Amino acid sequence: MFIRQLFDRDTWTYTYLIADPDTKEAAIIDAVKEQFDRDAQLIEELGFKLKYSLETHVHADHVTSSGKLRDRFGAQVVLQEASNAKCADILAKDGDVLKLGDKEIKVLHTPGHTDADATFQIDGAVFTGDALFVRGCGRTDFQAGSTESLYNSINDRIFSLPDDTVIYPGHDYKGHTASTVGEEKAYNPRLGGGKDLEAFAEIMDNLNLPAPARLDESLPGNMRCGAELN
Amino acid sequence: MFIRQLFDRDTWTYTYLIADPDTKEAAIIDAVKEQFDRDAQLIEELGFKLKYSLETHVHADHVTSSGKLRDRFGAQVVLQEASNAKCADILAKDGDVLKLGDKEIKVLHTPGHTDADATFQIDGAVFTGDALFVRGCGRTDFQAGSTESLYNSINDRIFSLPDDTVIYPGHDYKGHTASTVGEEKAYNPRLGGGKDLEAFAEIMDNLNLPAPARLDESLPGNMRCGAELN
Repeated sequence: MFIRQLFDRDTWTYTYLIADPDTKEAAIIDAVKEQFDRDAQLIEELGFKLKYSLETHVHADHVTSSGKLRDRFGAQVVLQEASNAKCADILAKDGDVLKLGDKEIKVLHTPGHTDADATFQIDGAVFTGDALFVRGCGRTDFQAGSTESLYNSINDRIFSLPDDTVIYPGHDYKGHTASTVGEEKAYNPRLGGGKDLEAFAEIMDNLNLPAPARLDESLPGNMRCGAELN
Repeated sequence: MFIRQLFDRDTWTYTYLIADPDTKEAAIIDAVKEQFDRDAQLIEELGFKLKYSLETHVHADHVTSSGKLRDRFGAQVVLQEASNAKCADILAKDGDVLKLGDKEIKVLHTPGHTDADATFQIDGAVFTGDALFVRGCGRTDFQAGSTESLYNSINDRIFSLPDDTVIYPGHDYKGHTASTVGEEKAYNPRLGGGKDLEAFAEIMDNLNLPAPARLDESLPGNMRCGAELN
């Protein structure tokens, strides 16, 4: 599978372009509205047929370009079903499989950061969105987040994968770009080393994070797949 | 080969940690002083033996942590020989080979951004520093830079590699993280599509770039491998 990581510096967001090199069928994960021109140019230069615009969740910190990617490339917009996002072409359920040529993208429902988090699994790698970060994880204090759900999602669905599975996060705030299941199981300060739910909750309950700067704009924008509000 | 990309957001710099997974002998490329703690922690968590701290050139936009990495891990600091950097343990020449276990890092002299640029080649990938960027290239207007040298370095030494060779740049200012020789040969707006030297020079002579913000601090700092000035 072709995998290309892209970064939006303003919102610290990672976008991923993945493709089956044989058929050139492609998907983009967590595309950022302000980066539409960059991403569209790259897709065109590589000769990719953009089949899906995948969202790991309804983002609170940036607005997606999924609607624009659908208009330009005919991509189907995919969100996890619990989002109830009416703009989506596909509301994906746990276990659903999306095809790029002969390659498969498996949808894992990994709630906890929100109630509608999807982790996308391909052979040897997972795109974990804001569920699991490199040496961290997403917050659980709004958007129907749940510390217990996130604990179970990460432990049962991600840490159960082979240790050499590559983790591609939705953000990183220290300049890490990727990790592995083995690394996070060992060194994630919130969940690694076999921490129990109580220890995890103690950490998560004391993060004292400010509200995301773009919350009021992002949530309604993303529920419309990035279309402008009237 | 293990390859992990790292980013310094303040200076838009990519650092790379590479290693032979069997012996865990490792090298870091273009480490940034402010990221020393992050990088040292990662090296320790992964159980790597840091054998080399490689510099693609004497940077004008950030100060290296190579001296601190030498102190902590016993790494040998490697710069290209034309740098005449007295702090280096190895002044590498074109064609030199550095070993990580059974794996080889080949040093290519690719001058033009400065007169002492090194591109580090491993199996299937090149770390091009500020010679070649994704859809761009380094400036040539100071530090003994030369438009003609850069043109020849990129065309003769990098574009001559197989098209699927992965390019890992020293910086990116649009959020790209990597490219390939084939992509850059086709789509690099400065050098792609078989542009001749005259066309390249016309572009490079009209960039009108400001001086790097940290020039006065960076050059003397890097000639000392990041040691403080008295």
